[in-house]
Amino acid sequence: MRAEKAAAVEDIRRLARQVPDFPQPGVLFTDLTPVFADGPALRSIMRAMAAPVAGRVDLVAGIDARGFLLGAGVALELGTGVLAVRKKGKLPPPVHSQEYALEYGSATLEVPAEAISLKGRRVLVVDDVLATGGTLRASVDLLVRCGATVESVAVVSEVPGLGGRERLGGVGLHCLTTA
Amino acid sequence: MRAEKAAAVEDIRRLARQVPDFPQPGVLFTDLTPVFADGPALRSIMRAMAAPVAGRVDLVAGIDARGFLLGAGVALELGTGVLAVRKKGKLPPPVHSQEYALEYGSATLEVPAEAISLKGRRVLVVDDVLATGGTLRASVDLLVRCGATVESVAVVSEVPGLGGRERLGGVGLHCLTTA
Repeated sequence: MRAEKAAAVEDIRRLARQVPDFPQPGVLFTDLTPVFADGPALRSIMRAMAAPVAGRVDLVAGIDARGFLLGAGVALELGTGVLAVRKKGKLPPPVHSQEYALEYGSATLEVPAEAISLKGRRVLVVDDVLATGGTLRASVDLLVRCGATVESVAVVSEVPGLGGRERLGGVGLHCLTTA
Repeated sequence: MRAEKAAAVEDIRRLARQVPDFPQPGVLFTDLTPVFADGPALRSIMRAMAAPVAGRVDLVAGIDARGFLLGAGVALELGTGVLAVRKKGKLPPPVHSQEYALEYGSATLEVPAEAISLKGRRVLVVDDVLATGGTLRASVDLLVRCGATVESVAVVSEVPGLGGRERLGGVGLHCLTTA
């Protein structure tokens, strides 16, 4: 696992693009698009994200939309399926939904309330970046409310100093790099 | 390849949910969420989508957002990277963009114009459903304008009678099922 993580971290450092003032002034955005577009880097990241929870989860939840890119690959590595945690209005009814506060206003996440049972499932929640943690916290709360056990959260990159880690509270967290 | 496709088709028939009148009255929506959430089904679909182009592409393009779920997995199967073809405003500048008409109004797709070269790349374009083909056609046009060769388009499900296949013109098309 240590070697897998080291390879992934090296790929991220080499290929990620740092973009100042996006999406707003003062924010340094880490664009992982070039990392995912590289075959060996994609594989090393999927392996490194899957390794810490191998054999301990039976479903991966990917957060709309960049978490989808990672979720399916991590699920393939683990031999599980992937559940799309969607933004409001994208899924047909019935849904379970979870509203949460943003800096300005609020947002809602949804998962199907039919045809998939989450009761007793051990879930790894996957996204690209942990920043303030609002979306990941809401995802965890939504899954738990549906009866799942969230084994841990895995992200490619953590932006420190925004309180994300604290907002996740007691939920286990695996990060490959710090932005 | 035939056996892989048959397994995937059987999984889709068994697990997909048909939802009438979503997202609008008169439309029968095929919800693939329960299919992707099933481990063996996810793997059989990824394999069946990858098999026809194995060795013939060096990049997979996934369309925002459901195409991301498939794109990364198909890329892993093929040993390539995955390029996120994004809705307007999600990528940091500079971007290449392509506007296209919707039933009411228009939409824009974007790919990075820096840090990823598409010149000469052989690309498989992946999405979940081919309906009118507007988004897939715009994706193909965008990638070609960036210098890529689109090897073919792969979708899980084709909705016949909406002109999607015709809109793709001479681009090769692989579908697992018909909705």
